[in-house]
Amino acid sequence: MEFDRFIQSTGEWLRGTGAESDIVVSSRIRLARNLVEYPFPPRADAAGRAEVESLLRERIASVGSCGNLVYQNVENLSQVDRQFLVERQLISREHSEKEGPRGVAIDSRESISLMINEEDHLRMQVFRSGFALDEAWQAINRLDNELEENVTFAFSEEFGYLTSCPTNVGTGMRVSVLLHLPALVLTKEIQKVFQAMHKMSLAVRGLYGEGSQAMGDFYQISNQITLGKSEEQLVSTVKRVVPDILEYERRVRQALVKEDRNRLHDQVSRAYGILKSAQTINSEETLQRLSLVRLGINLGLVDQLTIPVVNELFLHSQPAHLQKLRDDAGDAADRNAVRAAYLRQRLVEPSAN
Amino acid sequence: MEFDRFIQSTGEWLRGTGAESDIVVSSRIRLARNLVEYPFPPRADAAGRAEVESLLRERIASVGSCGNLVYQNVENLSQVDRQFLVERQLISREHSEKEGPRGVAIDSRESISLMINEEDHLRMQVFRSGFALDEAWQAINRLDNELEENVTFAFSEEFGYLTSCPTNVGTGMRVSVLLHLPALVLTKEIQKVFQAMHKMSLAVRGLYGEGSQAMGDFYQISNQITLGKSEEQLVSTVKRVVPDILEYERRVRQALVKEDRNRLHDQVSRAYGILKSAQTINSEETLQRLSLVRLGINLGLVDQLTIPVVNELFLHSQPAHLQKLRDDAGDAADRNAVRAAYLRQRLVEPSAN
Repeated sequence: MEFDRFIQSTGEWLRGTGAESDIVVSSRIRLARNLVEYPFPPRADAAGRAEVESLLRERIASVGSCGNLVYQNVENLSQVDRQFLVERQLISREHSEKEGPRGVAIDSRESISLMINEEDHLRMQVFRSGFALDEAWQAINRLDNELEENVTFAFSEEFGYLTSCPTNVGTGMRVSVLLHLPALVLTKEIQKVFQAMHKMSLAVRGLYGEGSQAMGDFYQISNQITLGKSEEQLVSTVKRVVPDILEYERRVRQALVKEDRNRLHDQVSRAYGILKSAQTINSEETLQRLSLVRLGINLGLVDQLTIPVVNELFLHSQPAHLQKLRDDAGDAADRNAVRAAYLRQRLVEPSAN
Repeated sequence: MEFDRFIQSTGEWLRGTGAESDIVVSSRIRLARNLVEYPFPPRADAAGRAEVESLLRERIASVGSCGNLVYQNVENLSQVDRQFLVERQLISREHSEKEGPRGVAIDSRESISLMINEEDHLRMQVFRSGFALDEAWQAINRLDNELEENVTFAFSEEFGYLTSCPTNVGTGMRVSVLLHLPALVLTKEIQKVFQAMHKMSLAVRGLYGEGSQAMGDFYQISNQITLGKSEEQLVSTVKRVVPDILEYERRVRQALVKEDRNRLHDQVSRAYGILKSAQTINSEETLQRLSLVRLGINLGLVDQLTIPVVNELFLHSQPAHLQKLRDDAGDAADRNAVRAAYLRQRLVEPSAN
């Protein structure tokens, strides 16, 4: 696959840099677009989809603002390669699992991905490490404008951009931030965040979007409304709630340290010790232990590791990454042993850190 | 205290050598004796006890078969020093806690201890690392004979040696082996051992004798009857049951390895990892984790450690040892932090192993 070399890195969204990156893992904006002359994907036949795939692939290639985009036909990819792209958030689970002509274009930093023939003809995403919604908005807006010089998107004066699912009509935009909130989870205060977000019509989801559980204490906060507000207003709505959540998480972290630093240090240190010594470990436990270690690094309780390394381990311990890294196609039990061996190798050998 | 230098070693009973030392930690024989002319300790007044203490101290010093015995007045020792001797099995908990003139004589290898004014005027013990009851019997018999040339013990033609408690009358002998039975505990098969020992009138007790729980999967097997059998018969009774228990423990160990080596390896490895990383750990958890590590060493699942080092950690992580090693008199929470720091230092720094 074109993107096999990506495995040496973590991609933009896990780079571990940028503003507030102790809590805000990444910022992401997605726009949904459809070509005006073609049936939308759910109603298109194979020939129609193939035509759209071919047309958009060409037009995307001519866009200058993204640097070199590399295109990958998703239909032809193996199960592992598709899962690999899902784990890196470069394609959606739906895009991985559906059938027919479809593809994805990605830049070398993995900061842009454009899916063709997902639920809509075009789903474009821009990622930024840390809290950087304005920057992400500027980048995706520029990309959208350049594309509109080459194609005509389905647009209604009354409703705005038209999409396959009515929930995306209007701006077609989803603005989201991925937050790491281990202290709020430890103290169960996270429920209050859920309630507050619900009242503001913001969605809270896990690491891999809708339906995925909040693994490793990662939560995505995003807008649910796409209609009746400008893009800038939607960015602003999500942007405005983040500082409050950051302050809440930080306050609880400090309280944990203040009230019982030794106990927290012990929990963090044991989590690290188990990651370094387990002979078999499943994905869920790995994320849970890494989450505690990540918290420990941010609180100065772990000094041999950095956030970028932990972010990388979050990603590389996922099934498809593990399989590609280890060239091992074993069953689940073996995969847990392979995962444990990988973690030991990365965490015990000092050169890895 | 005379015996402070002992802290650099583990003493005979934890040396980790001798026959079957993967399971038989040590062999021990104890004889209870009283002087014929004096009231037994429970009925003696302070002056009487002082006289006995003084007399026996002198007579013990003249015994040649034990090498150099060093005498320690126990009455004057601090709480920590008395607890230190209890942890090393050199004096009993009762001897540590009672009042009045009393003492203990110990050889430099810690293979002999003679308590004066414990429950009886004289309680002598001989230890051997591993499964070595015959050797222990020969040594203590020689010691007993030598002493009898210098003092007259209370002896009845009908009952044998007379003791403060009727359960010790006759030979005054307790023959015991200290076994490490982690696999039987893991699989709960240990209950069957308890039942079998009960039927044979043998006692099963924990690491520190009567009333102490079976910490770290250590069990002492010893005779309950002291009357109506010869010393050789009593030695033989305990000696005979050991091979069966050894075979049982080894069979279960092999079954654990065969049925699910990876799971066992994982348990052992995580226990080791936690010992190396905890920031606070109590005595009970330490013994439990060390027990699994000890099992792992014997099954070839841990290769960076040796049995003598683990035996030493079993002993050195006990409260009084920790306090003397670390010169720290903190409360229980602090002691758990001190213990964790000690374990990390011993297990993480390669030179320690």
